[in-house]
Amino acid sequence: MGVLIKRLAVLGSTGSIGQQTLDVVRALPHRFRIVGLAAGKNLALLAKQIDEFKPEFVGFSPMNGGDKETQAFLANLKCEILTMEEIACESRVDMAVMATSGKAGLSATLAAAKAGKSIALANKEALVIAGEIITGEAKQNGAMILPVDSEHSAIWQCLIGETQKANQLILTASGGPFRGYSLAQLEEVTVAQALKHPSWQMGKKITIDSATLMNKGLEVIEAHWLFDMPFESIKILIHPQSIIHSMVEFRDGSIKAQLSSPDMRLPIQYALSYPERLPNPELPRVDWNKVNNLTFAPPDFGLFPCLKLAVEAGKKGGTYPAVLCAADEVAVELFLSQRIRFVDIAAYIERTLAQHKPLSHPGMEEIMAADSWAREKIMELVNGDSL
Amino acid sequence: MGVLIKRLAVLGSTGSIGQQTLDVVRALPHRFRIVGLAAGKNLALLAKQIDEFKPEFVGFSPMNGGDKETQAFLANLKCEILTMEEIACESRVDMAVMATSGKAGLSATLAAAKAGKSIALANKEALVIAGEIITGEAKQNGAMILPVDSEHSAIWQCLIGETQKANQLILTASGGPFRGYSLAQLEEVTVAQALKHPSWQMGKKITIDSATLMNKGLEVIEAHWLFDMPFESIKILIHPQSIIHSMVEFRDGSIKAQLSSPDMRLPIQYALSYPERLPNPELPRVDWNKVNNLTFAPPDFGLFPCLKLAVEAGKKGGTYPAVLCAADEVAVELFLSQRIRFVDIAAYIERTLAQHKPLSHPGMEEIMAADSWAREKIMELVNGDSL
Repeated sequence: MGVLIKRLAVLGSTGSIGQQTLDVVRALPHRFRIVGLAAGKNLALLAKQIDEFKPEFVGFSPMNGGDKETQAFLANLKCEILTMEEIACESRVDMAVMATSGKAGLSATLAAAKAGKSIALANKEALVIAGEIITGEAKQNGAMILPVDSEHSAIWQCLIGETQKANQLILTASGGPFRGYSLAQLEEVTVAQALKHPSWQMGKKITIDSATLMNKGLEVIEAHWLFDMPFESIKILIHPQSIIHSMVEFRDGSIKAQLSSPDMRLPIQYALSYPERLPNPELPRVDWNKVNNLTFAPPDFGLFPCLKLAVEAGKKGGTYPAVLCAADEVAVELFLSQRIRFVDIAAYIERTLAQHKPLSHPGMEEIMAADSWAREKIMELVNGDSL
Repeated sequence: MGVLIKRLAVLGSTGSIGQQTLDVVRALPHRFRIVGLAAGKNLALLAKQIDEFKPEFVGFSPMNGGDKETQAFLANLKCEILTMEEIACESRVDMAVMATSGKAGLSATLAAAKAGKSIALANKEALVIAGEIITGEAKQNGAMILPVDSEHSAIWQCLIGETQKANQLILTASGGPFRGYSLAQLEEVTVAQALKHPSWQMGKKITIDSATLMNKGLEVIEAHWLFDMPFESIKILIHPQSIIHSMVEFRDGSIKAQLSSPDMRLPIQYALSYPERLPNPELPRVDWNKVNNLTFAPPDFGLFPCLKLAVEAGKKGGTYPAVLCAADEVAVELFLSQRIRFVDIAAYIERTLAQHKPLSHPGMEEIMAADSWAREKIMELVNGDSL
């Protein structure tokens, strides 16, 4: 039997998820072909990727498409130049891998949903900010959203074949590098410490979000939209070994869990190969001679207020999640540039959220306006304090 | 939408699995009706069950159908009297629950497989002894075998919805009450100690088999037949908390596990309700405030030789598993009646197997002959030693 080669476009190909997606394609060239690549930064790496994978078209983010270096780079390319949105909807693309981070992938994800494409979604902010719009468009236009986040991939794998809705989703969290820290210790945390994640290799933004547990909070909102589950039925469980990537409890009390060594290439590959699973010798296997103890504990909402802020913003809905994400992006940047302390991240996000005048069922423009408002507001608050 | 009531016959209704099956039916009377009950012992309890569930027919085991008490009991019943085999094939039965133990359920299971019935199978010896014949007949006649053993139910639940064969099955084992014992300690084990299982409430025979790990060995053979997996791809992992009931590793390295509090009513109910899951407030839920540590270790084949004997008998196939089971039944009886020591169970089974002249692809008569031979041989060996 012949096997179809899936034609992929990777948006955000130079980031952590993008590079790991290309690793998977490299290991399985008989199953996947890169027809589109897109990135917003790191032109040098993008050039190398273009050289290796020879895509039919390349995308650039309009945000930085204007500078001279990018213009010169694009002019020299021998393939088509498209926008992110055009790539996401391209008829030559079987699956769009949204490996961008922050709100960069938002409009491309929306475009893909409207075009009824298969979307491997790593860009969690898209669903957090505009979950109602994107899942609504996906449903209406027959787009399939395949989660790439390890937790959501785990839940998805556990749900496959089940005929009924889950009773409860149990999102596991490593707890980050500061699990068990006191408030006094958290107040002294350095950037270098926060960038050392105990179990996952990831980009800077998501590594800090993992340290504050904001990332887990965003995942709760993402799970709410992906699996149509009420927030009350999404539980968080600290599991430092990062072997169980999440669990699903069904209505008879039975629980299914998905386990693997912490390696993002596995959930990426599963989204690409679904409903098949493909052998890939590059992927690590769990070694039960080494994995002999899995531990679990409830999260500490008091010491990690970002978690609570995110879940509350998710519950309130409307423009709150957009404000949460925008304020978090700015706050993490300020922490990385050492303008605010680790514990200030949550404090400034909380103050920004408190001043927000929300809208229900916002459209994209209203979401973008809330995003801009939040970025200005948090800077205003930080600048006000430093005067 | 109206819901069909599933009509069940429970064979072995007075045993541990039989009683728990009736507990499930009691909790879900709108979904299940008992139309047939059958037992081989404990007429008093069977009479109570008949009084409560008012089955249309009752079965008795021909083995003890001849005594006066049973004859009088049956004569007084107001419902039809059928043999075990007749019940298993009854057109009024939607699903036959084989809750018998040992070889008692073998011919009824075979009859149900030939009749193309749905079979909820708790009687693991049937598949261990005659797996090739029973799975062959089930396949040929469209009978569905739904596992009731917690480990096999777990594997089955993990496989649901997957489109490809598993890479490896990981059967978990509590390790029994003597996990971590030295050989010297095992030599001193009493019947009372062996009957105290740390996590499961079960019948006597299976409790002793759990202490010797023979039960886990039989489960490996059962898994081999149920899931058509080579023995080399079935791994055993000691997991004392009995929360993860088994796992499946797929070819991409992803692992799915099924978890629950150790309560046989859950896998029983799942077999009855499949593909649905039904809420049942009587079933316990995992309390993650209490479950905070799951541990794993490889089994000690040296201290628990029954495990190795079983897996080897399974690999060799033919009449070896029948000899294994028969010798084990006799050896466990002899241990319970304090005629042999705990460590002698494996020793006598090993000596019996060593003297067996096996047949490949045996028919039922040859299997029964091997069974009889093994029972005589092990008694001969034990009696020879005690002279």
